[in-house]
Amino acid sequence: MPEVVVYLLEGRSLEQKRGLVKDITQAVVKNAGTNADQVTVSLVETPRTSKAKGGVLFSEMAPR
Amino acid sequence: MPEVVVYLLEGRSLEQKRGLVKDITQAVVKNAGTNADQVTVSLVETPRTSKAKGGVLFSEMAPR
Amino acid sequence: MPEVVVYLLEGRSLEQKRGLVKDITQAVVKNAGTNADQVTVSLVETPRTSKAKGGVLFSEMAPR
Amino acid sequence: MPEVVVYLLEGRSLEQKRGLVKDITQAVVKNAGTNADQVTVSLVETPRTSKAKGGVLFSEMAPR
Amino acid sequence: MPEVVVYLLEGRSLEQKRGLVKDITQAVVKNAGTNADQVTVSLVETPRTSKAKGGVLFSEMAPR
Amino acid sequence: MPEVVVYLLEGRSLEQKRGLVKDITQAVVKNAGTNADQVTVSLVETPRTSKAKGGVLFSEMAPR
Repeated sequence: MPEVVVYLLEGRSLEQKRGLVKDITQAVVKNAGTNADQVTVSLVETPRTSKAKGGVLFSEMAPR
Repeated sequence: MPEVVVYLLEGRSLEQKRGLVKDITQAVVKNAGTNADQVTVSLVETPRTSKAKGGVLFSEMAPR
Repeated sequence: MPEVVVYLLEGRSLEQKRGLVKDITQAVVKNAGTNADQVTVSLVETPRTSKAKGGVLFSEMAPR
Repeated sequence: MPEVVVYLLEGRSLEQKRGLVKDITQAVVKNAGTNADQVTVSLVETPRTSKAKGGVLFSEMAPR
Repeated sequence: MPEVVVYLLEGRSLEQKRGLVKDITQAVVKNAGTNADQVTVSLVETPRTSKAKGGVLFSEMAPR
Repeated sequence: MPEVVVYLLEGRSLEQKRGLVKDITQAVVKNAGTNADQVTVSLVETPRTSKAKGGVLFSEMAPR
């Protein structure tokens, strides 16, 4: 507690995920008056064919 | 903003997903006073072995 | 099934919410091969002090 | 209605999932004044490389 | 871990909520190979004006 | 994109929330290869009567 859910596209490396959960957890500990053991982070990864912005699937956007 | 999350079974075609995110985004733009670029839609797809209605997994229901 | 969750700021009128859930439901029915009775929509409304974009709470942005 | 979402690690057997959705649904029916047909349960399963506790990915913890 | 989120209408009594979180937690412990201390349950309650089934807000349905 | 949802108990101050969304956003920007404008954070706050750990509502635990 708290529980954090991050909705993001597939494709992050293990190193990126490692940093993401570590730094988000620190942000929660620093600001929400809890300790790290109480914090869970779930990365809900969706393929580019299952996520959209502006009504357009990421799989159908021009590459960034 | 707003962010839309749709929990659904796996198995929709790319064409269905394309229509789904487009039409949901239009529904949000029309009714929530925002523009399309602010709207994200994430499709969280679960296999039939991981979703239930009435306490029964979809994988164990008779086919519709 | 499917279940739709919309994360948005507080402050939409009843008429806006009525339109939002109706049109989102129609978007799902049209594109996901289900009927309306199977579709739920939950609006998870947060105050401007509990939602951020770009790392800044909506309550602390200049008014749009 | 209600809709239940369970965020858990991958790797549960079909038998475990079957029991999980059945028993959660019964818990909801018993306590929330609804009938089973109205209750959906979605299991959102994440690999051990995408979920963390205490800021550490489950894939990088010592085995339990 | 696991984390359970229940999307439901406002209006359950404290006794109902107490039973709901207790029984859902037991269902998870029994079926998911974890112990109770690892399980969180969040009840995300929405007013009848912010939840719909079949495209109609619960506030605008005939009383059950 | 990504969208972050944090499930936590009510009662954080405005200053805590300001820090929470700022630092979570920075954690995402640093590790997920995006820029801050693409990141939304929603704090889904539940009263102590609507959240449980170990099967017990926070409102019924001994004070920390």
